[in-house]
Parts: sequence; structure tokens; C-alpha cells
Amino acid sequence: MTDKQETQVYIENIGSHAGTTVTVKGWLYHKRSSGKVRFLLVRDGTGIIQCVASLADVGERMFQLIDEMNQESSLIVTGSVREDKRAPGGYEMTLSLVQLLSNAIDYPISPKDHGTAFLMDNRHLWIRSKRQHAILRIRHTIIKAIRDFFDERGFTLFDPPIFTPAACEGTSTLFETDYFGEKAYLTQSGQLYGEAGAMAFGKIYTFGPTFRAEKSKTRRHLTEFWMIEPEVAYLDLDGDMELAEEFIESVVERVLESRVEELKVIERDTSVLEKVKRPFPRISYTDAIEVLRKNGHETNWGDDIGGDEETTISNQYDRPVMVHHFPSAIKAFYMKHDPEHDELALGFDMLAPEGRGEIIGGGQREDNYDTLVRRIQHERLPMEAFDWYLDLRKYGSVPHAGFGLGLERTVGWICGLSHVRETIPFPRMISRLKP
Amino acid sequence: MTDKQETQVYIENIGSHAGTTVTVKGWLYHKRSSGKVRFLLVRDGTGIIQCVASLADVGERMFQLIDEMNQESSLIVTGSVREDKRAPGGYEMTLSLVQLLSNAIDYPISPKDHGTAFLMDNRHLWIRSKRQHAILRIRHTIIKAIRDFFDERGFTLFDPPIFTPAACEGTSTLFETDYFGEKAYLTQSGQLYGEAGAMAFGKIYTFGPTFRAEKSKTRRHLTEFWMIEPEVAYLDLDGDMELAEEFIESVVERVLESRVEELKVIERDTSVLEKVKRPFPRISYTDAIEVLRKNGHETNWGDDIGGDEETTISNQYDRPVMVHHFPSAIKAFYMKHDPEHDELALGFDMLAPEGRGEIIGGGQREDNYDTLVRRIQHERLPMEAFDWYLDLRKYGSVPHAGFGLGLERTVGWICGLSHVRETIPFPRMISRLKP
Repeated sequence: MTDKQETQVYIENIGSHAGTTVTVKGWLYHKRSSGKVRFLLVRDGTGIIQCVASLADVGERMFQLIDEMNQESSLIVTGSVREDKRAPGGYEMTLSLVQLLSNAIDYPISPKDHGTAFLMDNRHLWIRSKRQHAILRIRHTIIKAIRDFFDERGFTLFDPPIFTPAACEGTSTLFETDYFGEKAYLTQSGQLYGEAGAMAFGKIYTFGPTFRAEKSKTRRHLTEFWMIEPEVAYLDLDGDMELAEEFIESVVERVLESRVEELKVIERDTSVLEKVKRPFPRISYTDAIEVLRKNGHETNWGDDIGGDEETTISNQYDRPVMVHHFPSAIKAFYMKHDPEHDELALGFDMLAPEGRGEIIGGGQREDNYDTLVRRIQHERLPMEAFDWYLDLRKYGSVPHAGFGLGLERTVGWICGLSHVRETIPFPRMISRLKP
Repeated sequence: MTDKQETQVYIENIGSHAGTTVTVKGWLYHKRSSGKVRFLLVRDGTGIIQCVASLADVGERMFQLIDEMNQESSLIVTGSVREDKRAPGGYEMTLSLVQLLSNAIDYPISPKDHGTAFLMDNRHLWIRSKRQHAILRIRHTIIKAIRDFFDERGFTLFDPPIFTPAACEGTSTLFETDYFGEKAYLTQSGQLYGEAGAMAFGKIYTFGPTFRAEKSKTRRHLTEFWMIEPEVAYLDLDGDMELAEEFIESVVERVLESRVEELKVIERDTSVLEKVKRPFPRISYTDAIEVLRKNGHETNWGDDIGGDEETTISNQYDRPVMVHHFPSAIKAFYMKHDPEHDELALGFDMLAPEGRGEIIGGGQREDNYDTLVRRIQHERLPMEAFDWYLDLRKYGSVPHAGFGLGLERTVGWICGLSHVRETIPFPRMISRLKP
């Protein structure tokens, strides 16, 4: 439909076409009139460019067409590109040709304020808005940074199954499905499978969706969220914490480098992100309890650290903090205990700064067969569900460790969002299954 | 546990440590005796290295320890690295120190033949075997090549939801779950959501697990498999086929470049992969029917092309072939019809060579609101399930196209495997939910 002599370009690359005539295919983001000139903000999914159409340049018919166009109409514009420091993005197009593909009548999302429920109902359109667009581009970059981090370090990607046979830790937060007559559950974590992977590949990472049927209606919970779980053979708790801090530093650095524009759009205070540099502070659970009590919490040694407590702890630091050596009684059966203090587990949580709470949980795994059997018995878990997992301790057991990072919480923290619902294209929550 | 003065290295990097003494942490893959010398094949997940331990070098006690070690025992070895063209991998270690961590008694998978069911029951251990290890490393590389391809071309990764509210095309092959009192279904394809993404980001790709409760017990079917689905605004069928062939060429090229060793291990005939160069042959459905009839099939115009027919067609070519312009009656409601031949749909399938059948299906989407409404009515689909999807045609509709690639079938083809079950760490099939 376009004149074949014009080059079609994406807005994010338009700078390299300054001085030439190009064609952009996109949608009308905003329109403004001033006498015999119309200013169109055109978006194409990679950026937004200001286009100037004067009556003299485009002629009567096209000028009238522009006046009829509404927000989000699809259109193809051709014009010359020139640098303009005042224009958003630094470039502007002087149009010679405008083609309207499809006029959008009464686009529901206007620049005025809308309620959250309305926007969520229109999530398929809301993602076109500047702010949502920027967040999801940052999500893309975070995912790429995560994968690059592990790929560059020789980790093998190891996709764990989504369907799992046994309800290992109670069924209350599991989604269940009929699997040809059997019951199958949607995975809550790929870790156990990841451990099998680490024994085969040395170092692996899983990266996939996980599911929790939690009835929590909080700003931190999705029923469907993506997890990254590295697992490394011959790694101990210290090495695990080193890996985690190097990892987070690298991801934040990448976003700061490559998403400058998007961070501006969402008005993120990047000075707090710039502080995310190793080494991260480390504090034992026991010391953390002291900190909490000094700050007015009535938490006792042995208690779980909840959301409010996490906020208090993370507020003590200007960068992520790692809390380690939790009471073994409050940690999962597979966590290795401190050989010198059986009441402590060789695990850690990383809490994001700005009071945002846990983004990583991990630690060293129990690698002794007999100990693990006792733990499974003690927790009254079904032994037969763990036969294959126990095999990893029977055949060439080694010390090993890993951790899990929740992607959406990480995106939420890096973007400084108050709710995880904006961190994924189509969030799923207790009362949200559509669109 | 190792002497801190030795450098710990991974076997895949051992070449850069020739002439020095290093420590490798891994597992015993194989052992062979010859007089006062023991040859150990040690694997660490990144490679296998031959280690030579002589009684003179390691002493009586350690030599005896080696004799007690079984396959898959975990061990830490220290020794000097030297180049040896005859050794597998090109390097060999002369050991000075051997530490046994955990002896493996009666490791179930021996070098002798085992039945498939037994190996699948022991999948958590089977993945340590050379061949399975190589396949899953190739899988990793294919995934990375796919992501790099789209990332480098400015596509935004767009994760579609796994939980979907409506059973758009019948429930017979859908996995269902209770979603807080509602019914939710596991996604079969992210395409419809991907279209919303393309309108927001210009070009997107989805990459995630998809699910089909198909009762088929064939070598091509998994109930849980990963799909990649690019979707591009302002793209037509021709552009879509160009994108698909450039994509496949690029992925195959990457595997050939970076997985030379693994391709040798699985004894893949790479000459057929080297032929995967653009342009790929294109044949219309109508011409394909002629080819089938000439080759003894009794297929009539209008029939679906099944597995056997795909094999016949793909056997005509030495590279992937694209069959296009199918009868619209056998294609999904959202596929755009040829404006000049309403009975034809602007879709294509790509069939892999060596008679392997479809790896890609795609095409241009219907972008006219009224036409799409009529199609939904005609197919008696629930209109309310598509309200948001129809919005994409109401607000700034544009021509757009995309395709879906099945990851496991692609891995199977590139690796030359007879069954998809070896292409994913823990395959899920009709009678396989464990481990």
C-alpha cells in the first residue's frame, strides 16, 4: 500500500534516517491542531514520533482526512525526517502523505483518568499506553538480562515440567487438573527437577511459569507468575549468595543501560537502582530478629518473617539485603541444616530495597540420603512421590545449592510499581481471569 | 574440600588450562583398568575428560579407592592437564589427587541396552547419559537461537497467559482446572493474545508452554510442549513466509556452528542440515494435492493434509517446504481469506525435510471486524469470549500475520530423533506423568 520507493522504518531506528523520506506504519497516539498545521503523535510499537502535516504540504483532501482521524486509528505516514531537539524522541517528520487504514471510533482509553478495574478489563488495549508499554519493554529487557547472565556463565537452560504428579506439600494452593483419569497439579516450583538437572549438567537454570492458587488479594500476588531457578552442583550457601548478588547487580545494570527512555516514562527514581552494587549486606536471621524488635516488631526467634517485617529489614539498607541461616523449623524439608547448628537451615532470602520484600529465596539442599528420608517422614510427606528425588542422593550425591527469583516481583521493584498486576501482559489474580 | 591452591575448572574450558594443575568436580562416567593404571572418564555436566591415575602418582590408598568407585559416584579430581589428540575432547588429566564424595551403588542405567519404559521411569538419571545430555544441550542452543533471532530484530517478548477463560474451539483437547469457582483452561496457543501484543508493540513473540489433552499416542505428540509465536503488525502472508524461512535458516545455522560435539555424539547427519538455506521451496495447497495424487495418495482438494501426506510432500525437497493457500474451510476462523479467492486462506505450513512433517503453521489474520464477526457466528463460537479480540479490529485494525513453531518437534527434527519424548527434560504424554 505504500509507495515502494519510500523506505519503511521503525521509529526506534528513525535517527539513522535523518534527512531522508521514510514511511512509518502505526497508529495515531495523539493529535493537536494549530491553524493550517496538524501535529500528529504516531506510535508504531517501537516508539512515538511527532509528525507535522501542513495544509500546504498534504493538500486539502488529506488535511481533512487528518481532522477526521481519532486516537488509535491505524495509519501510514510518509515524510522527511529531521532532527529536532524539542521533539519527543529528538526527531520529527514533515509529512507529505497520510493514509488512513482504519478509523477508531470511541477508543475507550482516553488520556483522562480511568479506574483500575476498567483498565484491567481493557488490558488488551491498555498495553498500548505509554506507561504500560514502557513497563513491558523493561520486562523484556529484564528477561533477556536474566537469560544472558546464565547463558554467558555456562548454565544449561532446563525446562521443568508444568504437570506434576504428586501434591508434595499439601494441595491447598495447588491448581489441579484431570490428566487422563489421574490427578495432575500445576507446578509451584521447578526446583526439585532442577536438582536432577544440576546433577546432569553441573549448572542449570529453569525459567517458566509457576502457579499458586493462593486466595491472597495483595499487591504482591499473582496466581500465574514466572520463576527463574538456577541450581548448581558443588555449590554451598556462600557461593549461592555470591551468585545471587552478582546476578541481581547484572540485571539492574542492564536495565539502567538499555532502558533509559522507558525508565523516564515511568518516572522511576534511578538513583536507588544505581546503588545496587555488590557486595550486598548480609544479615543472619538471628540478627534480623534483633533489628525487628528494636524497630517495634514483636517478632520472636523462630517466627516466620512476614511482609511487614521484610519491609522493616529492607528499609535499613540502600541496596538488596540477604537474610540467611533461618530456623530450620520454618524452612522446607529439602533445605540443608547447618552441620554445627541443626536448628539453623543453610538458606537465604534476598529482600529488595525500598521496603519491597523478598525477591529471591534459596539455599543449600540436603544432600544426605538418610537425613532426607527422615525429613520426609517427619513432615509426613508421601515417600513414593520422592523416590526419584531421593535417587539424586543415592547415585553420586554432591553438595548443591540454588535459588528462585520471582520475575514479576523483580519487574515491580525495578520499575517501582505499587502492584504486580502491571508487570505481565495479562495478569491472573483471584478475581481476574479475563481478558 | 579441595586444596584452595588448585583452580577449579569446568571441563568445557579445560583447554585453556593445558600445562597447569586443576581440579574438576564431577561424577565417574566410566572406568577402565590396565595394570597399575586406571583410566577414569569424569563428567561434570559440561563435558567428559579422561583422567589417568597411576599407582605411582596417587599412592596405594587412593588407588584402592578408585577400584572401589562405581559409575556415577561423585568425585573431585586434581591433576595436570595436557593436550592429547587421541583423548575424547582432546585433553587428558594426569591425576595426583582423587577424592570420593559419595559412592553410587548399583546405578540403574548401565551401558547395556534398556527398554524405553525403564529409561523414561529413570528420566531423572537418564539425562546424565551422553546422548540425552547432548540432545538437551542442543535444545538449549535452539532456544537461545530463537530468542536471539527475535531480540536482534526488535521484537518484544510478550508472555501470554497460561490460564484462559473461554474454551474457544471446543473443550475436548483442553486441560481444565477450577479457578476459584470458575472454569479455566490451559492455553493451547498464545496467538490471540499475541495479536493484541502486535498492536501495542509492532512486533512481538511469545515463548511458553502450551497444552493439549490429545489422546494421540504418536511419536509427534506431547501433552505439554513449548511454542514460539511471533506476530507482526503490517505484515502479509509473503512477508510472514520470508520471516519464517529466515528464522529457520538462522536457528539451524546456529546449531551447526555451536553444537559440533553434540551433533557428533548423537550421530546426526549434518549434511542435510547444511542444506537448510533460503529460499525454501513454496508450493500452493492446490499443487501439493497434485503431488500427493501422483504419489499414490487418494487425497482430494479440500481434504486436510495428514501426517503421511506431509511426509510425502516434504520428501520431495532437500530443505523445508512451505505449503500455502489452504482451503479456508479447513483453517481456523481467524485466518484471512484470499481477497480474490474466498475459498482460499492466506495461511501456510512449513514442513521439515526428511519426511518429518509440520514444524510451523501460520498466516495472515482476518483484520476486518464484520468478516470476523460473521466467521465466529458461522462456527458457532461464543461471541462474548471474543469481545476483546474483536476490539483489535475495532480500534486501529491493521493487516497482520504470524506463525507458531513447536519447539520439541523442531528439536526432534534438528537432532534427527524418531520420537519427541527425548527433546524435553521431563516429557509429558498420555501415559507419562512421572517422574
